[in-house]
Amino acid sequence: MKVGFVGLGAMGRPMAENLLRAGFPVAVWARRAQSAAPLEAAGAVLRPTPAALAADVDVVISMVTGSGDVEALVLGGEGLLAGLRPGAVHVDMSTIAPTTARALAARCSEKGVVFLDAPVSGGVAGAVNGTLAIMVGGDEGALEKVKPVLEAMGKTILRVGPSGAGQVAKACNQMIFVTAEQACAEALRLAAASGVDPARVREALLGGSAWSRALEGWGEKMVRRDFSGGVEARLHHKDFGILMDEAMRLGAPLPIAAQVWQQLDALMSNEWGRKDTSILLRVLERSGGVDSGEERM
Amino acid sequence: MKVGFVGLGAMGRPMAENLLRAGFPVAVWARRAQSAAPLEAAGAVLRPTPAALAADVDVVISMVTGSGDVEALVLGGEGLLAGLRPGAVHVDMSTIAPTTARALAARCSEKGVVFLDAPVSGGVAGAVNGTLAIMVGGDEGALEKVKPVLEAMGKTILRVGPSGAGQVAKACNQMIFVTAEQACAEALRLAAASGVDPARVREALLGGSAWSRALEGWGEKMVRRDFSGGVEARLHHKDFGILMDEAMRLGAPLPIAAQVWQQLDALMSNEWGRKDTSILLRVLERSGGVDSGEERM
Amino acid sequence: MKVGFVGLGAMGRPMAENLLRAGFPVAVWARRAQSAAPLEAAGAVLRPTPAALAADVDVVISMVTGSGDVEALVLGGEGLLAGLRPGAVHVDMSTIAPTTARALAARCSEKGVVFLDAPVSGGVAGAVNGTLAIMVGGDEGALEKVKPVLEAMGKTILRVGPSGAGQVAKACNQMIFVTAEQACAEALRLAAASGVDPARVREALLGGSAWSRALEGWGEKMVRRDFSGGVEARLHHKDFGILMDEAMRLGAPLPIAAQVWQQLDALMSNEWGRKDTSILLRVLERSGGVDSGEERM
Amino acid sequence: MKVGFVGLGAMGRPMAENLLRAGFPVAVWARRAQSAAPLEAAGAVLRPTPAALAADVDVVISMVTGSGDVEALVLGGEGLLAGLRPGAVHVDMSTIAPTTARALAARCSEKGVVFLDAPVSGGVAGAVNGTLAIMVGGDEGALEKVKPVLEAMGKTILRVGPSGAGQVAKACNQMIFVTAEQACAEALRLAAASGVDPARVREALLGGSAWSRALEGWGEKMVRRDFSGGVEARLHHKDFGILMDEAMRLGAPLPIAAQVWQQLDALMSNEWGRKDTSILLRVLERSGGVDSGEERM
Repeated sequence: MKVGFVGLGAMGRPMAENLLRAGFPVAVWARRAQSAAPLEAAGAVLRPTPAALAADVDVVISMVTGSGDVEALVLGGEGLLAGLRPGAVHVDMSTIAPTTARALAARCSEKGVVFLDAPVSGGVAGAVNGTLAIMVGGDEGALEKVKPVLEAMGKTILRVGPSGAGQVAKACNQMIFVTAEQACAEALRLAAASGVDPARVREALLGGSAWSRALEGWGEKMVRRDFSGGVEARLHHKDFGILMDEAMRLGAPLPIAAQVWQQLDALMSNEWGRKDTSILLRVLERSGGVDSGEERM
Repeated sequence: MKVGFVGLGAMGRPMAENLLRAGFPVAVWARRAQSAAPLEAAGAVLRPTPAALAADVDVVISMVTGSGDVEALVLGGEGLLAGLRPGAVHVDMSTIAPTTARALAARCSEKGVVFLDAPVSGGVAGAVNGTLAIMVGGDEGALEKVKPVLEAMGKTILRVGPSGAGQVAKACNQMIFVTAEQACAEALRLAAASGVDPARVREALLGGSAWSRALEGWGEKMVRRDFSGGVEARLHHKDFGILMDEAMRLGAPLPIAAQVWQQLDALMSNEWGRKDTSILLRVLERSGGVDSGEERM
Repeated sequence: MKVGFVGLGAMGRPMAENLLRAGFPVAVWARRAQSAAPLEAAGAVLRPTPAALAADVDVVISMVTGSGDVEALVLGGEGLLAGLRPGAVHVDMSTIAPTTARALAARCSEKGVVFLDAPVSGGVAGAVNGTLAIMVGGDEGALEKVKPVLEAMGKTILRVGPSGAGQVAKACNQMIFVTAEQACAEALRLAAASGVDPARVREALLGGSAWSRALEGWGEKMVRRDFSGGVEARLHHKDFGILMDEAMRLGAPLPIAAQVWQQLDALMSNEWGRKDTSILLRVLERSGGVDSGEERM
Repeated sequence: MKVGFVGLGAMGRPMAENLLRAGFPVAVWARRAQSAAPLEAAGAVLRPTPAALAADVDVVISMVTGSGDVEALVLGGEGLLAGLRPGAVHVDMSTIAPTTARALAARCSEKGVVFLDAPVSGGVAGAVNGTLAIMVGGDEGALEKVKPVLEAMGKTILRVGPSGAGQVAKACNQMIFVTAEQACAEALRLAAASGVDPARVREALLGGSAWSRALEGWGEKMVRRDFSGGVEARLHHKDFGILMDEAMRLGAPLPIAAQVWQQLDALMSNEWGRKDTSILLRVLERSGGVDSGEERM
């Protein structure tokens, strides 16, 4: 199976490298040719346009930033859809709006191309180690066909439902995770205000009903006041925009998520968008006029 | 070490039984003598008043409902403090306000008695199996002294800090847990509104960054629409009252917790206070006019 | 001054009629020619396309629904911008996103056309009576030039600032108003839950510091449980989308507005989008399981 | 009618002076005798205890701070209830919990004394000018009897319902007013973030549907960044505690009020409790990392 790949960023590059390592012939396209150089060195072929890339492969993988990027990539002049052959599959692994995913799937379908939305969780470490969790929306048969390709990049591949369903699951994932971080921040702040050591409170809560990945990993970062590394908070802010747009479109009230979103807005206004989202603790402190601790950069 | 025990409810009875099983001599007092009958049958001695119970033991354990209950038990006529000898220790394992715990510790201290706040997490199962997590606030030496007694009831015993600190940790535990349940409810509701199977979404999120005990256990109950069993929601509602009072006293804003609290208020207004807190899903559905699913009683 | 008018809905039609009444020569364009018939009967000239309408006038007024509608009207094939002459002014009185208003102003400016954003408040009654409040963003000189036209439709015309500023003011207006309605709903609900007559509480609050147009007019509707008439709630829901998008773009947290928005989402999910926004009272009641009162249709 | 008065603070003193001015014989009691000196100079008689004060009058007026103060005043040793004669009326004009008002009314009733809750709105200016709005809960006949006394202090006197109803109305008043202030703050902050002059936005909104006393008076203070004077914010914080306790007791969700309360918590944590509540604008700015403007003290 010949694979095309677009989006050689922090996530995309190691994902493409894993495809090469698994033995797939890989063609790439990059806006700036130089970003493709490491991949070429590893055996990938460079194509001059998305359309040219698409014309020659069975499946295209894309890993870019937002809804607009994917739309331009697929529908633009010299875009993927201008090149993809009937029967080809485009697996978009970016985090975009479910409505955009559905609309693109419909447009692709008109030309006999299958579009799958397949956002991931697991971060850069998961991309490097090929252990991403992949949430897929779209045609089941097409997923079966491209599964070997996805298996070179991820550990669990789960079809959630029809087109857009992968993106809905991803939006839910981001909401639950960041809400758990915010709950940690509120708990640790309350402890500190109450004169109790936040580290001890976190320790007391591990293993019990309050246990979560967020409390374990990101609660620990909060306790150490290390707000570096990790997924950049601005990406979570972007993902909450997708979430709340979808909720508004459906008329589905999300009272807690809406409030977490406002904390992310405050985070952005503090110009902490490139820090780790655990810095929600400092947003909370600052809103209460407490500004003792300096974050590490 | 002779132990007195007060509060033979769903949690307290198995805790007292575990003390007997571990070989401690146990005296009990109960408002209605008949509730003590099973304990007497198992070897406990019945005392006519809290003061009489206290006069004869090295340590008293209490497991009652709210701040007012503990205050009456300790400070009332014929209350514990009228009987406890200098050097005795009162370990209150109820969930009460940190300020009440601090005030009682101060009152006890005047008479040479040590009061420890030691609320638990782990539910009825933890009480029966002796695997509770016990969060302790108060004097370190006294805790060391009574630790063998606590070890008969719990698996992890962690001193969080001075008087009241155990209750602060417990308030944080409840807040993080119920917030995680509410986030699950919002995610699963959004999925359903979006036409995606909530069970699939939950499955896709397990194991990733959104993982929590709430998603695993209570998310599963939501998917099955089984809102029975578990900790009664009205107790979480009560605990949020403690949490928000403490936050107000300290001037510590808890934006997300405040909103979860309103959902618990709505839950109470729906007269679902004796159901499992996972019924927050139905609160959310009903607010949006969706009322398809019937909860099991 | 020759005037072109687009958007002959509940608001637009009486506005155009007021222009005719004031003696301005008015040309209209309508997607469906028949909707222009009453205006033609009153003396307006019908044009076949927006471009044709624009080619012949000094100022165009538009009053349509959303950002997309205005974009299509201005930039579409045979759109206004294809016809407007350098020096002409386009006054868009629709409620749209500030960013869209700014972008359209920039596009118009390239062709020497001035685009003013000029949303209104005052409802259908204000449109009929020519007493609208008009909030204007954009070039001051152009506003002076077209002021006589605006004065035929509104009583107060205030330039708030540069392009987009009128829309920002409108978003603020909608937010403050609907938030006041929600606060009324919460107060009246609390009164009822507390066994106190909501009508008496409202009466006691009139004239004091809690006084607002919302309490006076819409609080009275809530007390009578008459949720008909008025601005359709779905339009407020739409306007909150604009507000929250702008807040997200700027990283400006709006904690209360975000929560009001969720109540509007719940309102939509209850399929009450065509009722008056005072039905927020019933959203609140229903979330608490209280569903005694039937709204009038 | 002989009148006793307790509570000679910023509100109480001018209220008592208005009673003297209206010709009522007034007896006063004060914890520190010197605070009664100006009243004595104006013709009031000083009594050594609340009980002594009560023994000699037909009606007692109290104007103190919180629920605990009123409880101690009525029920304490040498408290009012120890002195009041059957048929006497105690009008408490403090802002306290509805449940406390109801409990005190019941206790007084056992001794043949009528307790009316009669909180006010109108601030110090209203107290000085005798133009307070008085919201009364309790027995209608007793209110008729003491009305001449109340008319010396207030302009509108409205019986809202049975015992506690006056306090419910007052809680609603505070909630609606502070929520309107918070909405103003959010609107003006959004305007500033968007590059639009907040003063112009406020001006554009006056007179329209967004009109409120808060926008007119306190919005103007926000625009001038003058956060001095007015009702101290810590009193609004206290009143929200009453409101949210009542809501929790009733299981009545107040989603917006709960969020405003958190902003007041943040205000307290910033140690701005003695400033005017319009400083909510700065709470919002600070949470977003914006800290340009210095408040006047």
